[in-house]
Amino acid sequence: MVKGSGVGRPRASGAAASRPDARQAVLEAAGELFTGAGYAATTTRAIAERAGLRQASLYYHFPAKEDILAALLAETVRPSLALAARLVAGDAPAAVRLWALAYADIGLLGGARHNLGALYLLPEVGSPNLARFRIERAELKAAYGRLVAASGVEPAAVAIRTDLVFGLVESIAVIRRDDPALDVEAHVREGADGVVRLVGTEPVDAFRAEAHELLATLTD
Amino acid sequence: MVKGSGVGRPRASGAAASRPDARQAVLEAAGELFTGAGYAATTTRAIAERAGLRQASLYYHFPAKEDILAALLAETVRPSLALAARLVAGDAPAAVRLWALAYADIGLLGGARHNLGALYLLPEVGSPNLARFRIERAELKAAYGRLVAASGVEPAAVAIRTDLVFGLVESIAVIRRDDPALDVEAHVREGADGVVRLVGTEPVDAFRAEAHELLATLTD
Repeated sequence: MVKGSGVGRPRASGAAASRPDARQAVLEAAGELFTGAGYAATTTRAIAERAGLRQASLYYHFPAKEDILAALLAETVRPSLALAARLVAGDAPAAVRLWALAYADIGLLGGARHNLGALYLLPEVGSPNLARFRIERAELKAAYGRLVAASGVEPAAVAIRTDLVFGLVESIAVIRRDDPALDVEAHVREGADGVVRLVGTEPVDAFRAEAHELLATLTD
Repeated sequence: MVKGSGVGRPRASGAAASRPDARQAVLEAAGELFTGAGYAATTTRAIAERAGLRQASLYYHFPAKEDILAALLAETVRPSLALAARLVAGDAPAAVRLWALAYADIGLLGGARHNLGALYLLPEVGSPNLARFRIERAELKAAYGRLVAASGVEPAAVAIRTDLVFGLVESIAVIRRDDPALDVEAHVREGADGVVRLVGTEPVDAFRAEAHELLATLTD
């Protein structure tokens, strides 16, 4: 998880606000409420109450409700974006790198404590406060696109094929919503298999083992 | 399009309410507002204004805002569900029938005037008023599952593979949201190709032609 540095934020106005875990408590409470009751139906007051903080403390960390949404959504893309940069620069077979990225990314979205990917379709994601998330998500998609292109997909088909690959990865949010008790690990493996099938590669055990080894070297 | 029968609803209280197109005008206005401003941010008053109706007329057709959502979402599954029943009962090769269903279904979701699939992740979809939509969507998914199973996927993998197929089909909503100017026809064809790739079939032109012929006989 990548955490905000807090640089440039105003000073804490009370003891609760300066608790090092206050920011994390807000994110945890908001993640639960946004994915449960819904984003629009959740007030910052309800988030502060659930987090055990005064509203002033919440505002110290997050001036607006959209800032909380932005921080939560950042957690859903930044780790995958960092991994993607290393995979794009790597020299293993492209389909192996693609499988590895999808495996880690679906694992992040599918295994997170709250189903934050379900928030991607909120109209608020189009607001200026969410610009950074939109950019980072587009960068992640572009990294998938480079791996799709390197996998041997004909150039004219790369853009749409990348849409499908990215759509399949993110669909784990709908699958989780439909079946909260699902076997995440099985879905992550099958999802990564599906991603490489979309670019014309039938995965076999040796292929998956190579991708796992690659992930082990990159995420140490 | 399947329309409600109106059975059991109160009588119209004014001329506007009995206009035969009033119900459709409400759905059109609501589709635009729900997918634009968002479901929670849209009032029934705003819908009535956009539709050129009095609020009383709107309530005659839809007693609650969720009833409008239910009617809109029904339009996104019923035509595909009717087609799926005929395809499941058919005798063409299973992967051809699966391609045909995905092609028609992605076309329905991707080509609809408003991007209603973007509403599938709303928390309100879990409410009692949306039970019928949830059941019909589950029936459609079950039909995909029967075609996935008949395509030669090993029995233990059918459930997850069906999750992926259904996720890929519905991901057209995210793709449309990200790129409102996208080439829908190309995405529909590539999406259907992707669905059969997920069950291990590499589509060729003759395969697609067979699926198109099948669709022509079933949708006459």
